[in-house]
Amino acid sequence: MERRGIGVFDSGLGGLTVVKELRKLLPNEKIIYFGDTARVPYGSKSKKVIVKYSKEITNFLMTKNIKIIVIACNTATAMALEEIKNMVDIPVVGVIKPGSRRAVRTTTNNNIGIIGTTATIGSNSYYNEVKNINKNINVYQKACPLFVPLIEEGLLEDSVTYEMANRYLNGVKGKVDTLVLGCTHYPLIKKTIKKIVGENVILIDSAEETAIEVRDILYSKRLLRNDEGEESDFFVSDMPKKFEEIGKIFLGTDLKEAKYIDIESYSGENN
Amino acid sequence: MERRGIGVFDSGLGGLTVVKELRKLLPNEKIIYFGDTARVPYGSKSKKVIVKYSKEITNFLMTKNIKIIVIACNTATAMALEEIKNMVDIPVVGVIKPGSRRAVRTTTNNNIGIIGTTATIGSNSYYNEVKNINKNINVYQKACPLFVPLIEEGLLEDSVTYEMANRYLNGVKGKVDTLVLGCTHYPLIKKTIKKIVGENVILIDSAEETAIEVRDILYSKRLLRNDEGEESDFFVSDMPKKFEEIGKIFLGTDLKEAKYIDIESYSGENN
Repeated sequence: MERRGIGVFDSGLGGLTVVKELRKLLPNEKIIYFGDTARVPYGSKSKKVIVKYSKEITNFLMTKNIKIIVIACNTATAMALEEIKNMVDIPVVGVIKPGSRRAVRTTTNNNIGIIGTTATIGSNSYYNEVKNINKNINVYQKACPLFVPLIEEGLLEDSVTYEMANRYLNGVKGKVDTLVLGCTHYPLIKKTIKKIVGENVILIDSAEETAIEVRDILYSKRLLRNDEGEESDFFVSDMPKKFEEIGKIFLGTDLKEAKYIDIESYSGENN
Repeated sequence: MERRGIGVFDSGLGGLTVVKELRKLLPNEKIIYFGDTARVPYGSKSKKVIVKYSKEITNFLMTKNIKIIVIACNTATAMALEEIKNMVDIPVVGVIKPGSRRAVRTTTNNNIGIIGTTATIGSNSYYNEVKNINKNINVYQKACPLFVPLIEEGLLEDSVTYEMANRYLNGVKGKVDTLVLGCTHYPLIKKTIKKIVGENVILIDSAEETAIEVRDILYSKRLLRNDEGEESDFFVSDMPKKFEEIGKIFLGTDLKEAKYIDIESYSGENN
């Protein structure tokens, strides 16, 4: 009987959009989520530090009887996916490959836009992934460093967010027919983004496609759970109450208790 | 012969404004600076986590032969000053008391405004400090959570920064004659703030007054250095190169090499 859980982590709240899709697709599975709310945001940090933090989180998740790890954060996927794969002997899934695959399937004019944090865009991870699938696709990338703070301040349909989006998206609008929201926060400002790039541009968020990839892997390895699952567990490195409150917006349903974890104490031997 | 240094820390770059004033006032002194660039910003974190981080940094600074600690960060001062004082047997100076004292001396209409991060304002530290000095002064407080990300993006005289400042300062303009910039980042947007509150309002930043307090303490304890000092040492928890580049703006002069420190490894027994 397979009863191990699915470990999911993010720099904060955004990864809950992946949890939402996992729950839809795999309602029997138990999810163990870690949000690094003390050290959010990851988007402006170096590879060195993001790898270090991701390893600590992996050490923590590995104490929780899991069968797969989902890096539900674009920046951590871009910076640390390979390192985490090398660290554990269970499957590790990021959000960039599924998102890229979906974008390539979606575009009809072969012009794809990618927006994300400074770290994600600087890594060229999406660019490389898309070019790997089809080298004839034109990829327009743009880092949008103020989106995360604006979203975290709740300015979702605000004139200031619109103004910043207008500047950031200036180089992609009118060119792309598909725009990858390469940060799990960005789906919350879909309306604002649509206003600028136009209703016809298809916005891709990786959550749904990532959930499909997780299901396919668990299915092919015969790791799907058949009996009725347990409730998800949520852990954070700071401010569990705030996480519970704001988490609802991302998750779409109530979020039971989040527990505080001293994540630094999981540095182990992997640093 | 007194040769120990002055330990200064901040969540990132902002504390360099205090270093600048210390150098002016105490050119002989050696300064050892730590900027927690991996875990910046502190302004949205809990007391628990800020105390933890401040203790780690204190453990690190104590390995550097120092005679005084300056918490050159408003949020860390608000959240962790007492804890750090209890931890070490050398003097510990924060920025809130000096800034409050200066504000009280400056106001002529007894109406003082305080702006800062969510954590600083939420702590009521400035409010309490001002009221302690003179309970008849009216204090208007406002958290400005987007100022730090806007400043870190370099949008110092930008229309978006102006728009946010206009919203944040709406409740203080026309009332106060003195406005405390309760975050070491804010001096960089003085021009924008002045445009909104008016040229006559005096903006207080704590850096200069904090340097005076440090000098007074070292003088009274006979800890001032008499011989010519050595160069300052700079340490950060992430991206030393970026710190060197942007640090110049805060410091007003070139900044020699910054070194990377794995600050988590200084958690010691104080967690």
